Amino acid sequence: MEEINIVKIGGKVIDNEDERNKFLAKLSGIKKNIILVHGGGKVANQILTSMGIEPVMVGGRRITDAETLKVVTMVYAGLINKTIAARLNSLGRPAVGLSGVDGTLLDAVKRPVKDIDYGFAGDITSEGVNAQLLINLVKDGYTPVIATIAADKNAQLLNINADTVASTLTAGLAKHVKTNLFFCFEKKGVLMDANDDNSVIPLLNTQNYPELSAKGIFSEGMIPKLENAFRTVNQGVQKVIIGNSNDVEKFFEAEYAGTLICK
Amino acid sequence: MEEINIVKIGGKVIDNEDERNKFLAKLSGIKKNIILVHGGGKVANQILTSMGIEPVMVGGRRITDAETLKVVTMVYAGLINKTIAARLNSLGRPAVGLSGVDGTLLDAVKRPVKDIDYGFAGDITSEGVNAQLLINLVKDGYTPVIATIAADKNAQLLNINADTVASTLTAGLAKHVKTNLFFCFEKKGVLMDANDDNSVIPLLNTQNYPELSAKGIFSEGMIPKLENAFRTVNQGVQKVIIGNSNDVEKFFEAEYAGTLICK
Repeated sequence: MEEINIVKIGGKVIDNEDERNKFLAKLSGIKKNIILVHGGGKVANQILTSMGIEPVMVGGRRITDAETLKVVTMVYAGLINKTIAARLNSLGRPAVGLSGVDGTLLDAVKRPVKDIDYGFAGDITSEGVNAQLLINLVKDGYTPVIATIAADKNAQLLNINADTVASTLTAGLAKHVKTNLFFCFEKKGVLMDANDDNSVIPLLNTQNYPELSAKGIFSEGMIPKLENAFRTVNQGVQKVIIGNSNDVEKFFEAEYAGTLICK
Repeated sequence: MEEINIVKIGGKVIDNEDERNKFLAKLSGIKKNIILVHGGGKVANQILTSMGIEPVMVGGRRITDAETLKVVTMVYAGLINKTIAARLNSLGRPAVGLSGVDGTLLDAVKRPVKDIDYGFAGDITSEGVNAQLLINLVKDGYTPVIATIAADKNAQLLNINADTVASTLTAGLAKHVKTNLFFCFEKKGVLMDANDDNSVIPLLNTQNYPELSAKGIFSEGMIPKLENAFRTVNQGVQKVIIGNSNDVEKFFEAEYAGTLICK
């Protein structure tokens, strides 16, 4: 197998049906091996709110109590996962929707309580990735679509940060096959100035990142994404790009788009 | 491959955590190839009701409007599917949760409106089963766990009757591999007298079925199960049993339990 490209989507690409279908149509046309990892967008929050549960986020991460866990499992692994898989299939790109639970794709442990109790949130490692199941599906011509729910050894379901799932899967796969990781979101890349969409930082590496980080230019939601990206770069992945979902085709080509993350 | 056994569960085995875990522990111990098909139990109805939507059933089949479709997709393909897969994994039986959407396991069409408009309910055929995906997973040592949501060619999600999924999958697989089909439910088998749990009919075939059916002894919920069972028997499956989920181990042995359905 040549290589596997892990594409992570979230936000508007999931929430907005038109945006989602436009994105999935683009993705369908890319003649490369792809694994798609999706977050939950606003749908989970909408359903939580309609059930009288207030969504709680700290540092870009969700606090998952027992009821929230049920809802995110339903929304992520059920509604969103199957909606995306059905669309890809209808576009002629055979897709299999999975979660971290399935085939123990992701061997998770409940996050220990330190300063913050994240509730039923899980931590994962690249050693706990069932790479073979994904590689077999990709070899058979399928695009795995991964919802970010996993379980621990006692069958306790756990909610996993979607950026973490994407980067950990990539690192786990990198032990067996060449991998690239593309984080797709609303902005054109990591911005120097959050208010200027054209201030994309073309390259972030271990030299300039600490300096820029110290200046406080990265948003609360961006920091875990960047931490995951840097962790992955150190685990053998070829290329990590953070960029706009509209530019997804460019990430697969030499053509420049987004922010390239390097060692 | 020797053979594949399709086990369908519903009702209390899904609703009640203790019953479910007891059943899954039994299933885990059975050293045979198994595909588990699950319905939705009462959980979907509870969530529908909590959202102010009244569940509607006609002839043992759900009427699925747009909101109901969302809820059943979330509950069946999300919460229940992943809860079961996680439990099987934790019991040492590697499981992969899927729905009819995934890899187009089930190629569905929206049920045409005749006397009754079932809404987003789907019909499926054994020709539209992706047997190879299931066979590959079973060969790799996984127990596929199937939620009864599928999609049509335009990515419209559809709710499929769980008994129909079990029998259609079995018939589709029967073209490639020997199959058996076990419908597990609360009763010890198909009863001659609904009020007498010990009135199990040991054998139903195309000779005695029409006669008993004419007497009106079969309940509204039993009729689609029986129709599906007979359709399957005519499509090459080795053995169809309708019986109590507590007796699941017996169905795999020569030991007699439940109602055997024959030509």
